[in-house]
Amino acid sequence: VNPSHPAYSKNALDRRSGERNQPGWYEAQLDKAGARFAVFSGDKLVMHAGPAGSGGIKWFTRSELPTLMGNVPPVFLGADTSETAHFAAQAENDEAAAGNGLVALDVRSIALQGLVPAHDLGLIAQARSLLHWHSRHRFCANCGGTTSAGDAGYKRSCEACGAEHFPRTDPVAIMAIVRESNMLLGRSSRFAENMFSTLAGFVEPGETAEDAVRREVFEETAIRVGRVDYVMSQPWPFPANLMLGMVGEALSEEITIDPEELADARWFSFDEVRMMNTRTHPGNAVVPPDISIAWHLIRHVLDTRG
Amino acid sequence: VNPSHPAYSKNALDRRSGERNQPGWYEAQLDKAGARFAVFSGDKLVMHAGPAGSGGIKWFTRSELPTLMGNVPPVFLGADTSETAHFAAQAENDEAAAGNGLVALDVRSIALQGLVPAHDLGLIAQARSLLHWHSRHRFCANCGGTTSAGDAGYKRSCEACGAEHFPRTDPVAIMAIVRESNMLLGRSSRFAENMFSTLAGFVEPGETAEDAVRREVFEETAIRVGRVDYVMSQPWPFPANLMLGMVGEALSEEITIDPEELADARWFSFDEVRMMNTRTHPGNAVVPPDISIAWHLIRHVLDTRG
Repeated sequence: VNPSHPAYSKNALDRRSGERNQPGWYEAQLDKAGARFAVFSGDKLVMHAGPAGSGGIKWFTRSELPTLMGNVPPVFLGADTSETAHFAAQAENDEAAAGNGLVALDVRSIALQGLVPAHDLGLIAQARSLLHWHSRHRFCANCGGTTSAGDAGYKRSCEACGAEHFPRTDPVAIMAIVRESNMLLGRSSRFAENMFSTLAGFVEPGETAEDAVRREVFEETAIRVGRVDYVMSQPWPFPANLMLGMVGEALSEEITIDPEELADARWFSFDEVRMMNTRTHPGNAVVPPDISIAWHLIRHVLDTRG
Repeated sequence: VNPSHPAYSKNALDRRSGERNQPGWYEAQLDKAGARFAVFSGDKLVMHAGPAGSGGIKWFTRSELPTLMGNVPPVFLGADTSETAHFAAQAENDEAAAGNGLVALDVRSIALQGLVPAHDLGLIAQARSLLHWHSRHRFCANCGGTTSAGDAGYKRSCEACGAEHFPRTDPVAIMAIVRESNMLLGRSSRFAENMFSTLAGFVEPGETAEDAVRREVFEETAIRVGRVDYVMSQPWPFPANLMLGMVGEALSEEITIDPEELADARWFSFDEVRMMNTRTHPGNAVVPPDISIAWHLIRHVLDTRG
């Protein structure tokens, strides 16, 4: 059974975004009985080992926390319905996951292997994106001074020039391009063998999401795109993307790939795409796994136009 | 006559995003005959003074350029249909706009007063967002070292640790919230007197755009939102937002405002909103100007549900 939503897009925690900047609020949350901490070693989350790592997130108490990365305090993720405060923390090194029935797993594998409930994937994405941002922003881009975290982990302020910095979220346009009963899919040389996916690229400053679709598709394949319709969004924590899933209508057919971006790009008939999804395509071509918004965009097109 | 699109959302230049990282490409563009440069003094664009500043963008030749801000080289905006290379440059100080029939105007006023054609507003937004990013990112957030620009202005690299940094584009959810024939509009204490607008807030790491709508509306007004539909996007260069315009269905009615975020929020009937738009509302309430995506979202709701 395929999921109704792409991975990382459900999050049951209440972020308390209107309260996080109040004086003393963060410290009070840290001090709460039952406060729990997800811990990352590098980009990997510490999990209970369980059978095939299926034991779920290892929630540390405050006193159990390993030594944390310097100048990256725990970030507040949110409260659950029983008011338990949830945080994420960045370990200084890999010892956090050494033995004791624990294992550190990368965030993509956790989703791909279905190791946690869907609503935990949202908080894992939130944690991973925020901690990655903190660990790479300990200095001020404006003056080179040292920054320190505030607002429960949603701000860093420069101790030298006073500049305030906020977490990044990078919008990415990802698009199923359609012409009659055919879909344009491409493969990067980084992809798994035979895998074809929807094209994608970062939305640039001074550009609509829709124009980003047109620009990226033309740049990568020389296909002209007209109408563009939005379908859904997905947080994609590698490290902090917001995927904006869209369907675009091709105005041309002749593909010329940009070899720096793509190893291949082709028009596949909807029937072929169905076979790619069920892994019965005669050429062994496949589509990405159902954790991806690409898979959900492809399904959306087949469901609504197939 | 109201515009069919919000301001800053049309851009006629070809960004050449697939070529910008090729060795020597940027320098060759700079050297091209006819290369032209838009110049910013602080956050203001240098324009021909003209009647009411209506003389349009002052395009400098390379030899006309004033002294530029240190370590912020001209950024490539794109080529027009006649292959003319367009750049934007950040002046070191305000002399760039001193006399000579020139005037420096802020990017919002240029849109509001209709001083340039719609397709020039997109490149002005692109230029403003990119130059603002460069001027605030001359140092490395990872190590505090000095960064230098590359990829024709679409990257900065750290000379010390080698980290690569890319321009920010911050996604913002902005939403017309509807219940039967009523729309939820709020006013910040920063707004012009009597102006009510759609609510808005930054999409956070690990969150869908749709959940950002629900979170922000609940946080600011305590209204619960169910279904959310995307309508359109807009680049908003203050300094580098991507506005994601959506319509949400309210599941509750009772408003409790967050006084830190809003001075007021109310349900207005669609008939009232129409009067607010024509400036005939009995209480003198008004909606934002038609350069904003807020205005276009409001019109979208009235057109499709009114």
